[in-house]
Amino acid sequence: MAYNLLKGKRGLIFGALNDNSIAWKTAERVYEEGGVFILTNTPASMKMGNVNQLAEKCNTIVIPADATDVSDLENLIVKGMEHLGGKFDFVLHSIGMSPNVRKGRTYDDLNYHYLQQTFDISAISFHKILQTCRKLDAINDWGSVVALSYVAAQRTLYGYNDMADAKALLESIARSFGYIYGREKNIRINTVSQSPTMTTAGGGIMGFDKLLDFAERMSPLGNATADECADYIITLFSDLTRKVTMQNLFHDGGYSSMGMSLGAMSIYREGLEYNDVKEDKRNKKNSKKEDK
Amino acid sequence: MAYNLLKGKRGLIFGALNDNSIAWKTAERVYEEGGVFILTNTPASMKMGNVNQLAEKCNTIVIPADATDVSDLENLIVKGMEHLGGKFDFVLHSIGMSPNVRKGRTYDDLNYHYLQQTFDISAISFHKILQTCRKLDAINDWGSVVALSYVAAQRTLYGYNDMADAKALLESIARSFGYIYGREKNIRINTVSQSPTMTTAGGGIMGFDKLLDFAERMSPLGNATADECADYIITLFSDLTRKVTMQNLFHDGGYSSMGMSLGAMSIYREGLEYNDVKEDKRNKKNSKKEDK
Amino acid sequence: MAYNLLKGKRGLIFGALNDNSIAWKTAERVYEEGGVFILTNTPASMKMGNVNQLAEKCNTIVIPADATDVSDLENLIVKGMEHLGGKFDFVLHSIGMSPNVRKGRTYDDLNYHYLQQTFDISAISFHKILQTCRKLDAINDWGSVVALSYVAAQRTLYGYNDMADAKALLESIARSFGYIYGREKNIRINTVSQSPTMTTAGGGIMGFDKLLDFAERMSPLGNATADECADYIITLFSDLTRKVTMQNLFHDGGYSSMGMSLGAMSIYREGLEYNDVKEDKRNKKNSKKEDK
Amino acid sequence: MAYNLLKGKRGLIFGALNDNSIAWKTAERVYEEGGVFILTNTPASMKMGNVNQLAEKCNTIVIPADATDVSDLENLIVKGMEHLGGKFDFVLHSIGMSPNVRKGRTYDDLNYHYLQQTFDISAISFHKILQTCRKLDAINDWGSVVALSYVAAQRTLYGYNDMADAKALLESIARSFGYIYGREKNIRINTVSQSPTMTTAGGGIMGFDKLLDFAERMSPLGNATADECADYIITLFSDLTRKVTMQNLFHDGGYSSMGMSLGAMSIYREGLEYNDVKEDKRNKKNSKKEDK
Repeated sequence: MAYNLLKGKRGLIFGALNDNSIAWKTAERVYEEGGVFILTNTPASMKMGNVNQLAEKCNTIVIPADATDVSDLENLIVKGMEHLGGKFDFVLHSIGMSPNVRKGRTYDDLNYHYLQQTFDISAISFHKILQTCRKLDAINDWGSVVALSYVAAQRTLYGYNDMADAKALLESIARSFGYIYGREKNIRINTVSQSPTMTTAGGGIMGFDKLLDFAERMSPLGNATADECADYIITLFSDLTRKVTMQNLFHDGGYSSMGMSLGAMSIYREGLEYNDVKEDKRNKKNSKKEDK
Repeated sequence: MAYNLLKGKRGLIFGALNDNSIAWKTAERVYEEGGVFILTNTPASMKMGNVNQLAEKCNTIVIPADATDVSDLENLIVKGMEHLGGKFDFVLHSIGMSPNVRKGRTYDDLNYHYLQQTFDISAISFHKILQTCRKLDAINDWGSVVALSYVAAQRTLYGYNDMADAKALLESIARSFGYIYGREKNIRINTVSQSPTMTTAGGGIMGFDKLLDFAERMSPLGNATADECADYIITLFSDLTRKVTMQNLFHDGGYSSMGMSLGAMSIYREGLEYNDVKEDKRNKKNSKKEDK
Repeated sequence: MAYNLLKGKRGLIFGALNDNSIAWKTAERVYEEGGVFILTNTPASMKMGNVNQLAEKCNTIVIPADATDVSDLENLIVKGMEHLGGKFDFVLHSIGMSPNVRKGRTYDDLNYHYLQQTFDISAISFHKILQTCRKLDAINDWGSVVALSYVAAQRTLYGYNDMADAKALLESIARSFGYIYGREKNIRINTVSQSPTMTTAGGGIMGFDKLLDFAERMSPLGNATADECADYIITLFSDLTRKVTMQNLFHDGGYSSMGMSLGAMSIYREGLEYNDVKEDKRNKKNSKKEDK
Repeated sequence: MAYNLLKGKRGLIFGALNDNSIAWKTAERVYEEGGVFILTNTPASMKMGNVNQLAEKCNTIVIPADATDVSDLENLIVKGMEHLGGKFDFVLHSIGMSPNVRKGRTYDDLNYHYLQQTFDISAISFHKILQTCRKLDAINDWGSVVALSYVAAQRTLYGYNDMADAKALLESIARSFGYIYGREKNIRINTVSQSPTMTTAGGGIMGFDKLLDFAERMSPLGNATADECADYIITLFSDLTRKVTMQNLFHDGGYSSMGMSLGAMSIYREGLEYNDVKEDKRNKKNSKKEDK
């Protein structure tokens, strides 16, 4: 269902790879709500995924850009405004990648060059986008900027590695730049801390499916899907949330406010029971051996 | 501007006193967005304000109820569903009052009977509404419940007194009941932590106008108004925010994420300067006296 | 090992029931560190436990008092100062009880009279102690007050019921009164959010042993014990932490900052596996039946 | 006063520049409490300050090291253990510097090479220290690691610039590595979020003296001094806080839990009044001109 919430609004969407991507779903919903936008991704990601199909569907173009490269961003922003015929009203940052995770470097054996890349790609790119937009005066007054985050910024999850630090940095940049861009242009900047989502990026995290199950049972409303995240982002881009800024907004079915649910605990209990069953078997086997 | 965001939705709105009230503004916006609702307030508040005018404007009725009285709530909920022809999809709790504040009892000289009333009116009433709704199965699946809070729940403000504790309690109840109602019926429960707002309730706080000025200058986007709060609540009642629950959502122009703004500090500096000027005058006066 | 950290300090300790109690362990450690104190508990708790043995061991007395009764508190404080020969330097509040939990009333079926008692006993008692101390000028400048809390104040745990709200309220009271007592007398007030602990109170919570296991495996350092909590409280009573106030301090082996540990997840995975095994068995049984 | 809290403990202290430094004060207090340690700083900082005097006073040595250089750290750690005759029990990280701040680059005009340096010096150095210690197995079981942070990690302060993001990153690293080092060796890692302190580093922040005044009046106990911070760190290095980990601990006289104090507001009010007085003067002057 559509409400015309973004009628007349122009924007810039980073990070749509394929139809699992939150950025992809958001683009589709923005389009339904009457917004127009430019899609962008790195040339490498464009080959991996099929963002051009999305562009076609949404009657727009893809301008390739490496979000860690300021001159790429300048080109993107200038051409994007040209194409859309005006400044942006919304920007979505949905970019994250850790070479340390990809190459299997654990958190106590980080490669520092990779770490710098993790931060540059996943967090500093957000500052570069904002600073470049501001220098080019590319966002309208009362515009809305959203970046996607994860609860790992607050709470450590095994295997999430240096992406946790990158997300903490991302959320801090949202606050820091939110002050600057807010007082000058009334532009708001927020992060959405989304449930674990089975995107191409999410799937790369170790043991992700079990974590997803745990989050699902811990969250009273279950995990938020990519589609639901797109819906939520629509509200943040709309004129109805103009005074929300510098916030990290949990969109996670309640997960972040849960200590323990009955559902998650019931599985955990069975795990404890199973552990006991297995130990009993081992003990019986051993005692049989001893009998012989 | 209206978007039909609440078309077909029914609800219950507590706490509209007069046209400064956030609940009043919310009712107007809900009406514009196609929602229908029952208004309710205590008989005393109904006399103080003019909620009947609002009801007329929104083509609805007022059912008087004391939100601390479970039998009043039962009557309200049953009659409300009857009048609207179905269960509720949204509920707004905008109720707060401290007899200690009213009677000038400071936080180190609380009357404990009053304290109990503060909690009962401002926080436990929220539990009573939720528990009564649940027992009467009065909220539809995927319904949305919002209560209004204030940053005093996290940070102490002189003069806010026992209302700070009441707001902390209110936010906790939102979390606790959010778990229960979420897992059973997918109903979400959130609090909105709103900028200081010049409502009848807000105006009762000591030195409120200066605090408002400080918050205004600290917040990159300025204080959020009651109208803007109504807009925000609309998004929370809509189907676009279905997976947001058990959250305290700051709607405050960025205030809660600010440590110090240049704008607020420039006034503070002048205060320090003025202090020095005054002290100089005193010193000169004194030295003149001594000269004589 | 003892360091004389509390030499010359006098205090008041609420809530020692038996040698599982955190208050009991704290009393022992305070005594070792050279502090002197009065013990107090309700007459009912005194019968249930054996606080008199503790008093003997620590060379002090027990003054019975119901912490919800201001006149009891006045008597306690006046007599306590008399006995110790001066004002208090430290106060420990370790009191919590929910009649709703005891009587098996779930959170969506609370008895509101019981709820009021939960708050009065577990949270408002803290305000009463502080207000009464202040009126009687019973705490020395730079004194230290600690109350025991639990992470349920921030995150909902099934079965913890209205005690979650009570703990949120308790933490808010610590902040609110911390401001007042801090600016006037430099007295600091903090809460310690302790790991789940197998005390008499803790044991009353539904499924507490499994929760304890989960917290143990989630916490990098394991759960904090009552003995370790006593050690920590000693530092908060000492002169080395004079500028820490209005804080909720997690003493939990890292639990509060964890999203998921490998240890907890490995049990959870076994639970999922066991679930599958059981389902397979059920399916086989059913298919056999169908074969017949 | 000393308590022998660190008797028999060995450590490593980064960042003592001169006797305003928190690291300097901490070193002195550690020495008083019976701990032994190695001091370290960059060669450049060693010239700027007088850390050799501190070493002499504390009967130890300074091993120069650039904390962003892993081979320097390896040399430091190996030689440090040799000199002390064993592994470390405590480590203090008190390092922070922003070339962007130094060169007057505002947050909307950051130099990204400088930004990388800010992060490398102020935050990633912490990871490098921890990872190098772990690889060399240089910290004893139940050791304690502390890094100094500031509330800017949570709340934006004008002029604090990219150091805010660096502190957010630092706190995240403390959590992430706290999990790893905790589960393996029971080593705890925390950050202390200290009041603004007039150190050489602090003094470099724009308008720091006014901010200090504001924080002083907002904090019920006033700002925490460097000496008091040293005291607090002693408790975190001692065996009494063994189960506190992955926490950001506010040591700030209550500042972080304050919304508004009467003291700060009274200055702010005078600032508003002064503003009015000045405006009146301007208006009178203008009306006189118009009269002519």
